[in-house]
Amino acid sequence: MKKLEKLFSPKSIAIVGASPKREKLGNILVRNILGGGWKGKLYFVNPKYSRKRSEYYANLGELKRPVDLALVAIPAPMVNDILQEGALSKPKIENFVVISAGFSETGEKGKKIEDDLKMIAKKHQLNILGPNCLGFINTSENLNATFTDARVEKGKIAVVSQSGALEVALLDWAEEHKAGFSKAISIGNKSILGENEILSYLSKDKATGAVALYLEDIKDGAAFISATFGSGCQKPIAVIKAGKSKAGQKAIASHTGSLAQDENIVQAVFEKFGIIQAGSVEEFQDIISYLEYNKIPQKKEIIIVTNAGGLGVLAADFLGSSAGLRLLDIPEKTKKMLENILPVGASSGNPIDILGDAPPERYRAVIGILAKNFKHFPLLVLLTPQNQTNPLAVAKILGYYRKMFPSLSASFVGGTKIKKALEELEKKKIPNFESPERALAAIRGTFSQKNCRRDIFSSVARKKIHLKMKTNRILEKVKLEKRNLLFWNETRDIFREYKVALIEAQTAKQAKKVDFRKIKFPCVLKTDEPGIAHRWDKKAVALNIRNRKELETAWKKIKKATKATNFLVQPMAKPGLEMIIGMKRDRDFGPVIVAGWGGTFTEIFKDSVIFVPPLTAYGIRKKIERLEIYPVLKGYRGEKGYNIGEITEIVLALQRIAAENPDISQIDINPAILYNNGRHYQTLDAKIYL
Amino acid sequence: MKKLEKLFSPKSIAIVGASPKREKLGNILVRNILGGGWKGKLYFVNPKYSRKRSEYYANLGELKRPVDLALVAIPAPMVNDILQEGALSKPKIENFVVISAGFSETGEKGKKIEDDLKMIAKKHQLNILGPNCLGFINTSENLNATFTDARVEKGKIAVVSQSGALEVALLDWAEEHKAGFSKAISIGNKSILGENEILSYLSKDKATGAVALYLEDIKDGAAFISATFGSGCQKPIAVIKAGKSKAGQKAIASHTGSLAQDENIVQAVFEKFGIIQAGSVEEFQDIISYLEYNKIPQKKEIIIVTNAGGLGVLAADFLGSSAGLRLLDIPEKTKKMLENILPVGASSGNPIDILGDAPPERYRAVIGILAKNFKHFPLLVLLTPQNQTNPLAVAKILGYYRKMFPSLSASFVGGTKIKKALEELEKKKIPNFESPERALAAIRGTFSQKNCRRDIFSSVARKKIHLKMKTNRILEKVKLEKRNLLFWNETRDIFREYKVALIEAQTAKQAKKVDFRKIKFPCVLKTDEPGIAHRWDKKAVALNIRNRKELETAWKKIKKATKATNFLVQPMAKPGLEMIIGMKRDRDFGPVIVAGWGGTFTEIFKDSVIFVPPLTAYGIRKKIERLEIYPVLKGYRGEKGYNIGEITEIVLALQRIAAENPDISQIDINPAILYNNGRHYQTLDAKIYL
Repeated sequence: MKKLEKLFSPKSIAIVGASPKREKLGNILVRNILGGGWKGKLYFVNPKYSRKRSEYYANLGELKRPVDLALVAIPAPMVNDILQEGALSKPKIENFVVISAGFSETGEKGKKIEDDLKMIAKKHQLNILGPNCLGFINTSENLNATFTDARVEKGKIAVVSQSGALEVALLDWAEEHKAGFSKAISIGNKSILGENEILSYLSKDKATGAVALYLEDIKDGAAFISATFGSGCQKPIAVIKAGKSKAGQKAIASHTGSLAQDENIVQAVFEKFGIIQAGSVEEFQDIISYLEYNKIPQKKEIIIVTNAGGLGVLAADFLGSSAGLRLLDIPEKTKKMLENILPVGASSGNPIDILGDAPPERYRAVIGILAKNFKHFPLLVLLTPQNQTNPLAVAKILGYYRKMFPSLSASFVGGTKIKKALEELEKKKIPNFESPERALAAIRGTFSQKNCRRDIFSSVARKKIHLKMKTNRILEKVKLEKRNLLFWNETRDIFREYKVALIEAQTAKQAKKVDFRKIKFPCVLKTDEPGIAHRWDKKAVALNIRNRKELETAWKKIKKATKATNFLVQPMAKPGLEMIIGMKRDRDFGPVIVAGWGGTFTEIFKDSVIFVPPLTAYGIRKKIERLEIYPVLKGYRGEKGYNIGEITEIVLALQRIAAENPDISQIDINPAILYNNGRHYQTLDAKIYL
Repeated sequence: MKKLEKLFSPKSIAIVGASPKREKLGNILVRNILGGGWKGKLYFVNPKYSRKRSEYYANLGELKRPVDLALVAIPAPMVNDILQEGALSKPKIENFVVISAGFSETGEKGKKIEDDLKMIAKKHQLNILGPNCLGFINTSENLNATFTDARVEKGKIAVVSQSGALEVALLDWAEEHKAGFSKAISIGNKSILGENEILSYLSKDKATGAVALYLEDIKDGAAFISATFGSGCQKPIAVIKAGKSKAGQKAIASHTGSLAQDENIVQAVFEKFGIIQAGSVEEFQDIISYLEYNKIPQKKEIIIVTNAGGLGVLAADFLGSSAGLRLLDIPEKTKKMLENILPVGASSGNPIDILGDAPPERYRAVIGILAKNFKHFPLLVLLTPQNQTNPLAVAKILGYYRKMFPSLSASFVGGTKIKKALEELEKKKIPNFESPERALAAIRGTFSQKNCRRDIFSSVARKKIHLKMKTNRILEKVKLEKRNLLFWNETRDIFREYKVALIEAQTAKQAKKVDFRKIKFPCVLKTDEPGIAHRWDKKAVALNIRNRKELETAWKKIKKATKATNFLVQPMAKPGLEMIIGMKRDRDFGPVIVAGWGGTFTEIFKDSVIFVPPLTAYGIRKKIERLEIYPVLKGYRGEKGYNIGEITEIVLALQRIAAENPDISQIDINPAILYNNGRHYQTLDAKIYL
């Protein structure tokens, strides 16, 4: 993949499908490019007009001049010829934006054309944006290479969208709200250039300070992780990911044909790599507004100043019901200072309620006090346009303090009376949100970006991979035998090499072959058959067997029900706290580890967390704290706590097994039993799948 | 309480504190009243000017003409004299709006003044709005009796707010967005007239079609229920209730001094009585916008039409992750009709994606098809301003269909390009929401109003109250003995009268007095002391006692630890599904019943529901379905289900006990054990508190 600078900052553009007819896409493209003030060289390509009009070329080959970018707006069936023509022309054209629709999004026939497009692109090493895309805008170059005439100002956010329609809406919104963008890139069907290539490019783009991304699917999870890990660490990335629900996935399937991804894993990945997730279009816009002017907050504690007690309460409510951001406890000393300047009835607590009769000077006095010691805390200023409160004057005061507070937001709520104030805030680069809740959601959202870094950086120093000889041999054997589930003894040996406990058990093919001297009653009898993965459903387990005779009876019964030939006898374990821990290799993101409460009602309460490697003990522990069952783990109602380090140990071991043995697709430990009496944890059952 | 028509639609108003100085509140009030076009008679009262200026009266007594309403804007310490003056003047003045602040909201001194105000009001039977309020607007009378100069159009929504600041913001918002109101009433400290009186008044107000209510506390739960039950049944009531979280309650406490209410109960009450709950200021505004022009949807299934696939997916996502509203499954026949007019690549499923190149005619064609068979379903039309889609033309098409769809909403997303379209939608009385998610949240919110009615109506035919003789006698005795917890045998007798099961148990004062012929081992020993409510914490229980000797040992141990003299021996129960069921009498809303899962981790998963009387078996069952444990109750993973009717039976019995015995403040059944083997449920422990 060649670098994309030339594509997004071309000195010369050929428009394939340029047309003198105003309603034609090619014409609109020309107008948008010329209207934007771009300074490069523009060529028109259209065989229809090349005879009559000297400014038109019949094809790309005829052009014979350097063309940094070809913008293609002709019917889909003709696109591939053009690409080939460009690739073979001298000098070679390497960069294309295919605006044309009519590819895989329209069905089988279009998919065939797109497959050919991909082949041609790979053969000739072409960079192609699209097809079926809106094009792109590069405000640094005053270049609007899209078919929408939105006038977007320069800004530090790059918008990247898998939906052209949503991009149009965002650009129109930006024009109205004077939000600036560095780039606006529509990736369409992303045949060649997808989110990953664009993210890598933007990570080095000086004009871009943050990226806002609309995605319906993630093309290559591993590449996505490395692209975001590369760029996201320096620049905030905000994502709105469509298809979170079944209904949404169904809509995507009919809309793009993409297969559904496991959204729980997608979200765990976003969180792990500090990608800011927006829950709705508006939150996406709000996060963009926030990032445009503010830094990611340094502190988790916010200060709220309000002239409307009610709004302050609603803001506190919002924070109370959510994690990640909370109200700063204002120190007594500062409270005293505030009380000195506030009237009776005002509240020096947080939210600081300066009352409905607050003149602008009262805002100034309060913010002045806060500017002394609290400028690194996020500050949110609420206002309703009451008689004594001149909104414009307050906006000007905030403008004065703009540079002192790296995270300063406003929520002036109203309509007519606050219009001028909103313009002033815009001018002073202070984002205003239509409600306190929206402001807080945006601030809280961006905060996740900062939160994640420490964990990643401390864990990237990965351990070297050491192949385990025994494990390796076992897996080779399993592959040879074309099994996809391991026998108990194989699992035991692998676990032993990786230091994961597994309960002692005897395997046998017949009841009479069991060594009863080694059996402690009561015991458990199960099958040990690669063909029987879910023993409960197949009636392949008997619990609480009290003596030899009961064992033999159970053996017969199970044999009859399951036709099993391999059996397993193991002791009943002492009751303790049951956990389920497993590894699965996600199609898109590779291995992830899941741990959760494993009691009788596991599937009812679904109390589990997903760990995305690379993992550290600290990161694992932080996530375990989110389990609902965590209070029990920690020690609940006078009961002793459990050794959470043991869970961490198992999770880390599963991470290593996954990393060192790519053939293993899944591991299920169900249950691992923890004890709070000093006893070491025990796993009662474990399955390893190829 | 006199009727409030005169207060809100006065023919004559006296402004106490009227002033020729522009900056004075009294002057602002006069200007706002005169500026609004109100046609009544206005009197000015201010002793400062009565000598020099003929239009001023020195006091209310001097006026000697009928005054329907006195608007009071003078310092708090002088207000009570004015009220008294008005009450004693001839003709008597009965209606007051006290704008002045400086009452209970400012501390002890102000509280004293407000207490006096209440006394005077009660003595003379005065209607008082406020104090510390904004006043009110009555658009039917062109009367703006507030100190904000917002110009609000006529509309069908009445806004009632406990926060003046929020009301100012809403009025300003309404002015900008041309949202109309019938009334805007600021209730301030609600000393005399609170939400309940206002709701009762509005329920009969012809200009008001729906009520939007901002509340920080509910003054009198029972009155609130009867006020909303009276009016809410006919007119939708939307509430934004501040103080949902601890942080919010803290903010309210410092802001109004109100004591926190149990928010779970408040929410259960809202739901029970079909009050629409808004989660944020914006949702509140959105619900107001929706109600202004639309009916509450008849159907739970929504149809979405979009020219932006991505927005459709995000809308589907939103619905997928929430209950109450879902996408209509469009019948095959209609799909065929849609496919006939839609291009390749479009989706005839729901959301109906008519593609980015959709001209307005395509919207018309699709909505035309829907108008034939689906006009009673809520319809949401999404649009982003793409090249071929003229937003204004689409808005006009929607205008044409406005009257056919009782629930028609739009979400045109963008900025500059959709401005004119938004004006057109406004003109055609179609609410537009800035994002699909906001539209759906508003529609779903309003839907709850319709949902609740059936349950209430079928349960209001309450059973007559029959005092139970035995229960009555027991409670009299307990009161005489000044106990607040009943003995086991008393609880047993009451439960017997109300047909609630309670496990057999022997009470005894000494181990040797126990009738061992009647004891089945293993058994349980507990104290039966009114002084020991929480036996576990006090080590007042011994489980799994296997023989007489163990019983005697346990007896001694417990006696030593607790000094108890009354004991209880009962059999160990067979294990089953444990439930906790209880009744508590809420300070504000009277008896509510709580039922939930009662396993070991009850307090971890907090899986419970609140029932607000009056209850029906049907309503109870519907709510039980919301328990996370419900799949287990119904029969889980091949296990048999439990008799949910038994829970219903217990809940109904507790409702009767609460209704017939106002002295009982609380009942705890913990646990009730359900069985799925035909066995009748059993309760192992129950406590009745006075």
